[in-house]
Order: sequence, then structure tokens, then C-alpha cells
Amino acid sequence: MTIQYFSSVTAPVNIATLKYWGKRDSSLNLPTNSSISVTLSQDDLKTTTTVATSSSFSTDQLYLNGKLESLASQRSQSCLEELRKYRKQLEENDPSAPKLSQWPLRIVSVNNFPTAAGLASSAAGYAAMVYAIAQLYELPLDRSELSKIARQGSGSACRSLYGGFVAWEMGTEINGDDSKAVQIADVSHWPGIKAAILVVSAEKKEVPSTGGMQLTVKTSDLFDYRIKKVVPERFEKMSKAILAKDFETFAELTMKDSNSFHAVCLDSYPPIFYMNDTSKRIVKIINELNKSQGRNVAAYTFDAGPNAVIYYEEKDERLVLGVIHEFFGTLQGWEKKKGVEYVVPKLFPIEKFDHQTFSQGVSRVILTGVGEGPTKTDEVLINLETGLPWQGSQL
Amino acid sequence: MTIQYFSSVTAPVNIATLKYWGKRDSSLNLPTNSSISVTLSQDDLKTTTTVATSSSFSTDQLYLNGKLESLASQRSQSCLEELRKYRKQLEENDPSAPKLSQWPLRIVSVNNFPTAAGLASSAAGYAAMVYAIAQLYELPLDRSELSKIARQGSGSACRSLYGGFVAWEMGTEINGDDSKAVQIADVSHWPGIKAAILVVSAEKKEVPSTGGMQLTVKTSDLFDYRIKKVVPERFEKMSKAILAKDFETFAELTMKDSNSFHAVCLDSYPPIFYMNDTSKRIVKIINELNKSQGRNVAAYTFDAGPNAVIYYEEKDERLVLGVIHEFFGTLQGWEKKKGVEYVVPKLFPIEKFDHQTFSQGVSRVILTGVGEGPTKTDEVLINLETGLPWQGSQL
Repeated sequence: MTIQYFSSVTAPVNIATLKYWGKRDSSLNLPTNSSISVTLSQDDLKTTTTVATSSSFSTDQLYLNGKLESLASQRSQSCLEELRKYRKQLEENDPSAPKLSQWPLRIVSVNNFPTAAGLASSAAGYAAMVYAIAQLYELPLDRSELSKIARQGSGSACRSLYGGFVAWEMGTEINGDDSKAVQIADVSHWPGIKAAILVVSAEKKEVPSTGGMQLTVKTSDLFDYRIKKVVPERFEKMSKAILAKDFETFAELTMKDSNSFHAVCLDSYPPIFYMNDTSKRIVKIINELNKSQGRNVAAYTFDAGPNAVIYYEEKDERLVLGVIHEFFGTLQGWEKKKGVEYVVPKLFPIEKFDHQTFSQGVSRVILTGVGEGPTKTDEVLINLETGLPWQGSQL
Repeated sequence: MTIQYFSSVTAPVNIATLKYWGKRDSSLNLPTNSSISVTLSQDDLKTTTTVATSSSFSTDQLYLNGKLESLASQRSQSCLEELRKYRKQLEENDPSAPKLSQWPLRIVSVNNFPTAAGLASSAAGYAAMVYAIAQLYELPLDRSELSKIARQGSGSACRSLYGGFVAWEMGTEINGDDSKAVQIADVSHWPGIKAAILVVSAEKKEVPSTGGMQLTVKTSDLFDYRIKKVVPERFEKMSKAILAKDFETFAELTMKDSNSFHAVCLDSYPPIFYMNDTSKRIVKIINELNKSQGRNVAAYTFDAGPNAVIYYEEKDERLVLGVIHEFFGTLQGWEKKKGVEYVVPKLFPIEKFDHQTFSQGVSRVILTGVGEGPTKTDEVLINLETGLPWQGSQL
């Protein structure tokens, strides 16, 4: 055989600056508040996915990083069913269209970064899968429509359908039809936004985010106020700050919302802790850096784990990376900056930091920045003669 | 000379179960919410204070743990002025009363526990000073009235004027006249309440609580909801739980309020972290213990620092201390339990805990329980011939 119907795409990771935490419907992944994220560059973090379909396949199959994985979860099934439903409509409207909706799918996906590092790989994964199948099926849906499908796989995946600066509007409808991603601004609007990810070693496995969210919704006394009062105001302000390229405000809101999200986790019963002592030391470093410069040159944010993502503007790169390099300069991740000499910025109160203590607990650094949304690629992960993954697709 | 006018008292530490965090008036120490505490036994933690007054003294003096300390702070001055004002009234009403209000005071105070451990020594200290001077001056004021004076020295000191279970009613008056401690129940009502204090080594000095409170009031978006909605409801429920000796509810509310207090600290900007990774491990231990028993047998609470206070009922002592001893049994503090053999309770999932990791970070254990309020003592810390502290009063 030679497989005729296939499509290959890449999709990015996104890191929220206004956090998604809480579902109002957990089977549809409908959130209790709107959120905002920055899409990160696929040069550094991406999922590549090839999908193929053929009447000769026996069942739907997913190969993730070279391993056969189950597609049985309700989340995966929802995405596949929805995409097939749209394809079926298309086939009904155009009798000449091949009946791809009736054939099994083979999905082969690889990440260019370690899955275990807790770097929102499921967001990139579902975005890539949905975008690839939509291409394969030639569906007449825009990214916002596709985001609603990806959302059912993993809530935050919906934001990975766009590049640049993305809002996930929570919506109000019961069926989730208005709970979708929209682009606030594309990369070209504010290309100077950079991100340094500090991968922090965790002592133990964290509370999975779905269970954590449900516990917070059910038990935190402060949560309701966060979603009804705090986040809606912050959403408006953050959107405006992005449109105005106002880093000072963007940074303040990003740090405050990270704090607020971890506060309602801590207010859960029993409390959920995602930040550890290493995370807190990173907060202190960024804090003192901003204080020393008399303005926000960097903004930390923490997801459901101890990793820090530090956003900053390219114009301040020497200041921000100067400090980060001072503590974490010996770790993996600086290769792309080879030859650059970093110095601790003037005014930074280095004497307040015990070097040995503050260099602890981080395992690698990833230097990246804002980037584009899912895109087609020529890289094909499936051997079109055999229908099986190429060996090379095993990381 | 022989000093004729002196008084000697002891006063206890108290640990809040409903936290005081936020001042509406920082010179009068008026809080933004009411709070509740348990007074701890003076057998284990107490301040002993002798005050003397004599026309032969030249100025007011304070010796704290054998060292001459300043009384110049506004907080100390407020207490002394207020007490002298009441004495002066008494002298005006009774011309035969000696004019003690005009004489300098000598205050000698010692703690029977390390001041540096972060164990609310200022609460015991101000309560002892105010109670001792009130005795010396023979003031016709009840403990609730005295609590208003101690409050001006250190907010939470007002709660140390009573034994047992104590509420600090926030009050509404601008001059603070209704912001005072009242007793919810005395020791005899629920004598079986025990406390294990786990003294945790801090990596760095914490944010002092006055500055921390002000930052939270000014910057936390969740704080207002906590003080207006969350705490008032919890206050009523906790008072009732104490009166009903309902440990299940008391424990839940205590843990929730500790979480909530640390949540608004984290929601401050920049965030304040008082709990560290050791604190979090203790939370996990208590959590799993309660889960394993199908009820709350222990309740953790954390003040503005990483130390844990674990409340439990005497009837569950073998369960609770069994677990605590398993991890911290080699530390100082178990001498009073000599001969008792502790075993990990059945059903406790010991396999979830890496022993080495979970035994880290605690420096000593203090085993105590609910106790009485300030009381007169025969121990006199001042040499009545010289007017100077006895050498023995130096710890």
C-alpha cells in the first residue's frame, strides 16, 4: 500500500499569564474563568504530529514519542468524534469527497522536549492532533472553531491553536459553543517577548491538575471571589496591556495572577502546594531584580508544578539573563547563547543571595520567546509504505 | 534600700486557631478581623515578669532574658502610659494611695523557652508586663480591660490575658475601646486539648508580621473577601465548636483558617511565604493521618513562620504522637514522655513517606496543651535590696 491521505503539522506549547483553574463542566472542559496565555516558540518547544487514514487500518492508533498509547479516554474520543462528525457533514454535502470519516486514523506524535518536565505537553499534543486531522479532513473550520474541539481534549490546549497572545473566553453556553480561543495579538505585534523556563526538580509527583481544580472549586472559600471579581478585572487589564505593549502592567498582572492561583490552591482543603522552596527562591530573585531596576523587567509565573517561566522583553535580556545566568549558568540550555558573556546587573543586590542556596533545585534552563501557532510541516512521521511510525520518530 | 512595691506574675503564649492578619489602625493595633486562640500551658511555655517601682529609680528600665532592652518603642510607651493613667485616677480618688504613677518602673522578664524559636514570645511578654504592672498598681480592671492595654503592645498579646479558649473581638470603635479579648471557655471546659509544637529551622529571617500584614492589606485582592466573608462565618462556627467540644469541626476550621491566612500572604504583592517545604511535609503527614483514621484526630496551624502547631485531643495522643514520634522521635522534647513507647498507628500509610525526607527540617518538639492565663507567682526576679535583676534571671 501507499498511504494517500495524511497530514503533518507542528503545534506549540502555551504558558498562561492569567490562569485557568476550575471547571464548570468537566466532561466538556468548560472553565470557571477566562484565561490568557503566551504561545511559545516552536523552535524550542513543539509537538510534531502526522495523521494518516486508510481503509486498510484496523483501528485508531496513537504513537506518542515512539510508544503506542491508548486513545480510549473520553477526552481523546470526544476530539475524534467531533472531527469525524464535521468530516461526515462535508462528505454529505460533497458526494465526491472520499469517505475518510469511516476509516481508522493513525496518529504519530513526538515532542522536541522531555514530556516529563511538566511543560504543558498535553496542550501542544491535543492542538497538534486536532489541527492535523482538520487538515487531513479539509475541514472548513477556523482556528477558533478548532480550539473548541482541542479544548475537549485538554482545556488549555485550545489556546495552542493560535500564536502570539491568546485569550480563552470562558463562554456562558451550556454546550460550550462559545468557550473558545481568540487571538488578542499575533507574534508580530510584540515579537520582543522572551521567556526563560527554569525546570525545577520536584520532590514528589504533584496533584494532577484536573483533580486539583475540582478540589479547589469544591473547598476553597476564596475561589469564588477569585473567579467572579479578581479574574474578570484582570482579564480586561491584561488584554489592554498586551495591546499597548505595556510590559510594566503585563508583568505585574502576570505575577499577581500566578500568586492568586497558587493562593486558592493553598486555600483548598486539604491544601495543594505546587510551588516549592526552589520556586520561592526564584520569586525572590525576580523580585529583587525588579526592585533594583525600579521597574518590572521580568515576570515569573508558575503552573501546576514548581517550574518557573520568566517573561521579559528582549531589550532587557542582558539584565534578566545576567541574573539567571549568575545562579543557573552551569546548567543545560545556554548552548544557543554561546559566546555571550553575562554579568550580574548593576544595582542587583547580589549580597542578599547565598549563591549555593539559590543555585539549588533547578535542573535545566530553556530560553525561548513568543511564537507562532500550529502550522503544516513537510516532516512526515509515518512511513507511507507501511503505515507505521518511522524509527526516527522515537525520541 | 528595700523595694516595697513590686509584683511578680507569669503569662502564657497563645496560638491562634482563627488567625489575626491585618490592622485597620496600626498605632492602636486594631485588627481587620476577630480571631480565636488556644492559650498554651505555662508548664512548657511562659514568661515570668517582676515589676518594681521606687522613687529611687532614675528611669524606666526593661531587662529581658538578662539583657537591658529599650522601652522607647511607641508600643511599650502606650502600655506604660495607659497603666499610669489608670493608676493616677486611682491616686486621685484615694489620696492615701502612694503616688506610684510618678515613679520609674523596673521590669525584669524571662522566658522559659528560646525567644528566637518564633513562638509568639511577644504576646506572652506584653501580657505579663501589663498584668504585673496592673497588680503592682492595684488597678480595678478585669482581664478584658487589661487586654486592651496589652493589645497596644502587640495585637495577639491581648489573647494571652485569658487561659483556655479566647476570642479577640475586633470591635468597631475608632479608639479601640471595644477591641478586646473575651474568654470563650476556660481550661476546665475542655482540658483534653493538647498541642505538639514542631520547631522548624528557617532558611532565612521571615518578613516581620507587622510589615507583612500591611503589605497584605494593601495588595492582596483576596484579602477583603477573607475578612468580610470567610472569617466572620468561621468565627461563629469555631466558637460553637469549642463550646460543643466538637474536635472534628474545630480541627477542620483550624486547618482551613491556617491555609486561608497563608493564601492571602501568597496573594500579596510581592508574595509572602511563611511555610516552607518542611511545613508542607508536616501538612501531608497530618492529612494522611486524619484520612487514615476517617476523622480529624489532629489539626495543624502555622503562624507567620514555618513552625507547626498540632492540636489534638488527649484521647488520641497515642495516635498523634505515634506518627510525630516516628518522624521526629530523636529530637529534643520527648523527655517528659520518657518510658512511653510510641508506634505508628494502624492504617497510617507509612509507605507513602520517605523517612529520611520527612524527618528533615525540624529542630525540636515541644509537647504541651491548653493552659491557664496570667497568674501571680512567688518567684521574684529582682533583688529587692539592690533593685537589680538577680543573676538567676538570666537564661
